Amino acid sequence: MQLNDTTNPAPFDARQLDQLAELCVKLAVNVQEGQELVMNAPVEALPLVRRIAVHAYRAGASLVTPLLADPEIALSRFQHGRGAAFDRAPGWLYDGMGQALDDGAALAAIIGTDPMLMADQDPGHVGRVSKASAVANKPVQERISGFDTNWSILAWPGLAWARRVFPDLPDDEAAACLANEIVAAARLDSADPIATWQAHADALRRRCDWLNTRRFDALHFRGPGTDLRVGLADGHLWMGGATAAGNGVPCIPNIPTEEVFTNPHAARVDGHVRATKPLSHMGTLIDDIQVRFEAGRIVEARASRGEAMLQSLLDSDEGARRLGEVALVPHSSPISKSGLLFYNTLFDENAACHIALGQSLSRCFRDAASLSRDDITERGGNSSAIHIDWMIGSDKLDIDGIDSDGRRTPVFRDGEWAD
Amino acid sequence: MQLNDTTNPAPFDARQLDQLAELCVKLAVNVQEGQELVMNAPVEALPLVRRIAVHAYRAGASLVTPLLADPEIALSRFQHGRGAAFDRAPGWLYDGMGQALDDGAALAAIIGTDPMLMADQDPGHVGRVSKASAVANKPVQERISGFDTNWSILAWPGLAWARRVFPDLPDDEAAACLANEIVAAARLDSADPIATWQAHADALRRRCDWLNTRRFDALHFRGPGTDLRVGLADGHLWMGGATAAGNGVPCIPNIPTEEVFTNPHAARVDGHVRATKPLSHMGTLIDDIQVRFEAGRIVEARASRGEAMLQSLLDSDEGARRLGEVALVPHSSPISKSGLLFYNTLFDENAACHIALGQSLSRCFRDAASLSRDDITERGGNSSAIHIDWMIGSDKLDIDGIDSDGRRTPVFRDGEWAD
Repeated sequence: MQLNDTTNPAPFDARQLDQLAELCVKLAVNVQEGQELVMNAPVEALPLVRRIAVHAYRAGASLVTPLLADPEIALSRFQHGRGAAFDRAPGWLYDGMGQALDDGAALAAIIGTDPMLMADQDPGHVGRVSKASAVANKPVQERISGFDTNWSILAWPGLAWARRVFPDLPDDEAAACLANEIVAAARLDSADPIATWQAHADALRRRCDWLNTRRFDALHFRGPGTDLRVGLADGHLWMGGATAAGNGVPCIPNIPTEEVFTNPHAARVDGHVRATKPLSHMGTLIDDIQVRFEAGRIVEARASRGEAMLQSLLDSDEGARRLGEVALVPHSSPISKSGLLFYNTLFDENAACHIALGQSLSRCFRDAASLSRDDITERGGNSSAIHIDWMIGSDKLDIDGIDSDGRRTPVFRDGEWAD
Repeated sequence: MQLNDTTNPAPFDARQLDQLAELCVKLAVNVQEGQELVMNAPVEALPLVRRIAVHAYRAGASLVTPLLADPEIALSRFQHGRGAAFDRAPGWLYDGMGQALDDGAALAAIIGTDPMLMADQDPGHVGRVSKASAVANKPVQERISGFDTNWSILAWPGLAWARRVFPDLPDDEAAACLANEIVAAARLDSADPIATWQAHADALRRRCDWLNTRRFDALHFRGPGTDLRVGLADGHLWMGGATAAGNGVPCIPNIPTEEVFTNPHAARVDGHVRATKPLSHMGTLIDDIQVRFEAGRIVEARASRGEAMLQSLLDSDEGARRLGEVALVPHSSPISKSGLLFYNTLFDENAACHIALGQSLSRCFRDAASLSRDDITERGGNSSAIHIDWMIGSDKLDIDGIDSDGRRTPVFRDGEWAD
């Protein structure tokens, strides 16, 4: 293991690595002169973290603090830990990060670890750790979901992840193929990635403008296993592409992103819905989720795999059984066209319409800045320590927008925008 | 770079790695059932960090949180950062660590990076970062120097460090040689390292017992360039080997350790002293330090190299110009016998008598538990954000213990215990 050798930061080539880092700093996170940058990343992503640090300091960052996580150490807790080890989380670290964000830091999160890391561990232990982590992480989750500061999530083609996406390829090829998918999804293969992203963000903005003009009362999702009416929060605002964070800095919170999203009404979701892709949460795969809602609350839930983790998520707190996001993504999105299953929310959620359990997005209201927490609740916003997206879109999904007088407007047909 | 491959965690062999990790968990830090463990380490030391995590969880740790630092990112701040970048430190992270220690966490710190990492950077910038870091780190420094919780520092044979110690060897050999020195200093080459360490700690304890019986008023150091009278704090206590931390858990705060140490009196140090080894601080080498004390305070200071960093350290705060530790190490210590210069305090300070600028050790008083901060000050304890050891011992050093009536007792002659 030779960590000092960054001359060949495979699986990206040096130019791609630099482009992704530059995109992160200049557009996605949009690090400001004098701003601190906190980075969460798996240690395997160190070449990207290092390159982001270079671009951040060049952009005038006052301090870059990487928090490097190691999946092997995370795993050793389950392999060697005892009883009390499964109910603890580093609350002091999350509290500290919350303090950094309050003091104006930007946040970049790099994902890319094995989506099935915990597959062989005791589901009860995994669920307990997941719950303890979610509760401890709430100070960070609240600031992220509220867009208090500029932040973004990007991907690193970790080897264990690449093996899951390309199980039939040798390691080197798998990692290179996943790197290629990340390059394509991040539009780094265009002549001017930053200009391309600005145009893409404008296109998402136009979709938002149309939805914000229509002010639907609810969306009705129909597809195989799905007949779900999702009431939208009162005064909801559709967002997508670039988001102006609470500190005034525009950012693109996910690279890639193909979605427009808003707040459902936490008390007005009814019917049943079936996931169209598996969900990986903290190294556990949850497959074929089927749930039924009554008055906004999940009253039945099952999964063909990972059901213990699903139940543990739903038991995190009261808000975990209600929705905190609804997002529209056409089936023809570039990521969807790849035909690949990524087992990773950052990619799979940008290949399909999705909904999220838990915390709602406090910026997705028309007059967000003036709303108290009580105002948000009154308008149908949700509160939870978790925010877990899962995919319900496919080429068989139809969506109608429903006005308050019951009139219907086609929004999606066969998985595509209806207009 | 293949971080998932730990089958060959060179430069240690697997058995040495496991022994060092076990020594860390069972004796040095002495991780307790249900206790959290926080680890500071360079990312290069990941194989050791992983192995310590395994032993910690086996010992019943409730949570292991590694904080992995990357020297290349630290360096990129100086290479690419601008103005404001040099006065910031992640105070939120140190505050969080302070909270973790207050809540009962143990701390393991792994050192092993390039002692001259910052050699080519602007000394003014390096000094500003050093000062900002020292101030921000005070919550951690206070808990460490006060032995509030069980902690220890251990070494990893980082490649850049190995190159400095063995500049004439190829990389692989240099790293292997440094690994061998760490193995020898950590007594891992004995049949039962833990039993060997217990015997060694007992021997250090006997030295402390003698010094604590004698209750010297002052120590008088004489050697080439040195004629220094160090008054000892009122009610000072000599410690060494195993230390009972404030939480009741015995720990060995340094691996290796060959020293016995206590608190000087911050107002009763007079004369001049010349360093016998260079000091590496935050990647800057400070060589041939010469200072003069009057009434406890450094009134003149110079160095043949790194003087800007030395002055920056002395300007950290008022207490930085006064002593917070005096430590005795015979010249025949195993590390000294190696004849090597490690450019690393953990090793060099255990090859030579040394003194420390800055924060005193609040446990090194006879009735430490009952002392307020004011009591400590009244007895001659010192307060500072820094605690920097530097080496003044050699085979030409004589030390006398002086009683309050002026009677002298030989303590060291020609660098060795006089008895």
